[in-house]
Amino acid sequence: MNSATKRRLQLYPNGMHAVIAEFLQSAGGFETRLAALDDPEHGLTEDVVNSTDVLIWWGHCAHGEVKDEIVKRVHKRVLEGMGLIVLHSGHFSKIFKAVMGTNCSLKWREEGEKERLWNLEPLHPITEGIGEYIELPNAEMYGERFDIPTPDKLIFVSWFEGGEVFRSGCCWERGHGKIFYFCPGHETYPIYYNEQVMRVIANAVRWARPRGFMEHDAPNTPSLEKLSPKDVEFGKAGVQQDVE
Amino acid sequence: MNSATKRRLQLYPNGMHAVIAEFLQSAGGFETRLAALDDPEHGLTEDVVNSTDVLIWWGHCAHGEVKDEIVKRVHKRVLEGMGLIVLHSGHFSKIFKAVMGTNCSLKWREEGEKERLWNLEPLHPITEGIGEYIELPNAEMYGERFDIPTPDKLIFVSWFEGGEVFRSGCCWERGHGKIFYFCPGHETYPIYYNEQVMRVIANAVRWARPRGFMEHDAPNTPSLEKLSPKDVEFGKAGVQQDVE
Amino acid sequence: MNSATKRRLQLYPNGMHAVIAEFLQSAGGFETRLAALDDPEHGLTEDVVNSTDVLIWWGHCAHGEVKDEIVKRVHKRVLEGMGLIVLHSGHFSKIFKAVMGTNCSLKWREEGEKERLWNLEPLHPITEGIGEYIELPNAEMYGERFDIPTPDKLIFVSWFEGGEVFRSGCCWERGHGKIFYFCPGHETYPIYYNEQVMRVIANAVRWARPRGFMEHDAPNTPSLEKLSPKDVEFGKAGVQQDVE
Amino acid sequence: MNSATKRRLQLYPNGMHAVIAEFLQSAGGFETRLAALDDPEHGLTEDVVNSTDVLIWWGHCAHGEVKDEIVKRVHKRVLEGMGLIVLHSGHFSKIFKAVMGTNCSLKWREEGEKERLWNLEPLHPITEGIGEYIELPNAEMYGERFDIPTPDKLIFVSWFEGGEVFRSGCCWERGHGKIFYFCPGHETYPIYYNEQVMRVIANAVRWARPRGFMEHDAPNTPSLEKLSPKDVEFGKAGVQQDVE
Repeated sequence: MNSATKRRLQLYPNGMHAVIAEFLQSAGGFETRLAALDDPEHGLTEDVVNSTDVLIWWGHCAHGEVKDEIVKRVHKRVLEGMGLIVLHSGHFSKIFKAVMGTNCSLKWREEGEKERLWNLEPLHPITEGIGEYIELPNAEMYGERFDIPTPDKLIFVSWFEGGEVFRSGCCWERGHGKIFYFCPGHETYPIYYNEQVMRVIANAVRWARPRGFMEHDAPNTPSLEKLSPKDVEFGKAGVQQDVE
Repeated sequence: MNSATKRRLQLYPNGMHAVIAEFLQSAGGFETRLAALDDPEHGLTEDVVNSTDVLIWWGHCAHGEVKDEIVKRVHKRVLEGMGLIVLHSGHFSKIFKAVMGTNCSLKWREEGEKERLWNLEPLHPITEGIGEYIELPNAEMYGERFDIPTPDKLIFVSWFEGGEVFRSGCCWERGHGKIFYFCPGHETYPIYYNEQVMRVIANAVRWARPRGFMEHDAPNTPSLEKLSPKDVEFGKAGVQQDVE
Repeated sequence: MNSATKRRLQLYPNGMHAVIAEFLQSAGGFETRLAALDDPEHGLTEDVVNSTDVLIWWGHCAHGEVKDEIVKRVHKRVLEGMGLIVLHSGHFSKIFKAVMGTNCSLKWREEGEKERLWNLEPLHPITEGIGEYIELPNAEMYGERFDIPTPDKLIFVSWFEGGEVFRSGCCWERGHGKIFYFCPGHETYPIYYNEQVMRVIANAVRWARPRGFMEHDAPNTPSLEKLSPKDVEFGKAGVQQDVE
Repeated sequence: MNSATKRRLQLYPNGMHAVIAEFLQSAGGFETRLAALDDPEHGLTEDVVNSTDVLIWWGHCAHGEVKDEIVKRVHKRVLEGMGLIVLHSGHFSKIFKAVMGTNCSLKWREEGEKERLWNLEPLHPITEGIGEYIELPNAEMYGERFDIPTPDKLIFVSWFEGGEVFRSGCCWERGHGKIFYFCPGHETYPIYYNEQVMRVIANAVRWARPRGFMEHDAPNTPSLEKLSPKDVEFGKAGVQQDVE
């Protein structure tokens, strides 16, 4: 067992997801379920995904082990309306890269340095109860250039002791779903015991909850207005069906 | 042979791609190459992709036959800087959906109706030489809701005789590459013989040409500033390598 | 009295604002107040503005008569968090132009033609309860190019019988305030008696209500980190105070 | 004469504008003219403004002395296509606030601390020839929250020694004009002698140069399609003329 694993197990003996779920439970207003890589279908069966309002995703070394079909299932549901909160090293998860359409690459460094997340949107629902900034005494550095589409709304920008900056809280909408990326959460630091970090996550879940779900289709629709007569007969190439 | 195929072969005996390439050749300033589904690797070998500045993509019924590995290759190159012009029913191509991260679904109707593309950005390089609008006497209707991320810049919005509207010219940047979606181009209409449509395509190729190419990596970087001493020893979880 | 005035008085004997307020009252959950050009300070005293959550603005021929100091007052409050709903010909109001920073110019035509507003965001709070589109049998045409900054979110795009299109429902955030422009509302048509139009306005008021108010300042702040000694003595140019 | 003025005159005996113009002259490809607050009409007569492609704006303590009519003239021309580069404390200029529509407030501190501007868009024309970052040994701190509309493109984010971050290079388009805000340039530091800073300014001028100029109007336009007969006679309220 290497030092990182040892440290992680010390901090999160039941997993990081358990700590996050406990916080949400104690905050009230949330019903939580856990899903992990080793569960059948990674715990993300059709039933689970289709009855989830907001999915929180954390992953690190095992991104490659996540099955493509599960990623497609989650992706489809996000576009239909499910919220998605991606934490820390989840930036390199298949699902985050799929919804972004980019590499999501960044700089990094594990030196336990200080991070200060500046709150750019003090009246946004995600920063409710957070002051001017969040200060983390020890964090993994994530630095720009972060290869993401321009966020619809940039919520946090981080300052790092070692000299870098990072867009550490970013909102997007894709299809009918809301997506929030939030930087804090390295497994060898007790970050998910930080009250402010957890408050942001809880706020983000509330922000990302769907106003409904809607499937996407590509309907062949009759015209609403009467068309003028056409003097050419055009062939009809037919149905626009999705390839997936 | 159905009526649509017959009509297409009549209009484009050597393929639509040949007509587009001829226009670009005659416009001057472009070096063109053709690639088709039936070519080995769809004509998009590593060499071809890596020596292409801007790729124009048209596809319709056979999106599902395009190999995933070729799509990944093209996607990677777009993020590194290659321009991508997606035409008409290419909205449902694997590559467009991959760079958008959305379904790209829409409404449609083949009645040969009138389309008028309104030019919202008369001083944008893509609309150089185009007036207030482009009028197509016969076109396939594509209607909203078009499931795309909000365009960085909306260039054209279409009015259709039958009563619909459509965001028919849209710009995005992803990674270091520029992407332009342009609606006209149904295979049973002589749209790629329309001077204005072709001018937009030529303009878009010029607009999308790369200022260079850059690979994405996720470097572990030393700090630029001296870090204060840390009073805890954290484990190091290690390398951020991309899963692809 | 010209035909337009006659028609307006017939449709809205107590003013359009009264009809809108009545609808909001009957919808429930809103407390409304009226303000008009001829009121002292246009009805927008400091007290009124500072105790308003969302301001709905309609204006037409008399934009030039609105006092600059009142516009500044409203503008300041929008940036502090007050919601702003701008209706129809309010596109040319001083306040809309001030928050946009652009001309807000557009094409127009008064022929009582059909307008169909397509709903691009069926799960957005502003379109709650609205279907695929709103159809108005008679409307003034507003056409592109509408000179506005790219909306954060484009909610409606209109199709007009006469051949034009228009971005007829647009969201922005400026400072801490939310802004919605909504096209329908010509004074010679009974548009504010249309259930769907009114529902959009009520939804927009709910969407735009502030999560709080925050003044903007430009504080001279001490450093959070200890600065290294500097080997040059720089002069200090001093206070960054706002010019207004 | 206070220490700041003394320092400024030492560094820029002929003004900062002269140093910037000299750099552009020596870079080649630019024709430059100078304009200052004390010149008649601040040096920005109709003739000057209407024959300028890109205007660089720096100001600090005297923003309030800039005449509103000159600001309106410049604003109008930006919307018609003129590029605008706003430097450093120009963030609080009347013209920048007018095109943004926001307060443009920020935090600040004059301690001569280190600033590192991270380049988020290494293939953007504005960063041509600039590496991963620009490091300034001594700079005034500008910190978030910077009250601006979300930039169309975020080019630089600054790290400050004292613990803050700042969106220090931002692009927008308004009307037909391009706008770039660039943070460096405090008058008591020799920043406009920094090769990288000057290169960014030269690049920005090239990027912002107009593709043409276009006035905004609000034309009453005839319909392109034949309208169906209307069964009501609506009054016509008439001309949409701009209030300015």
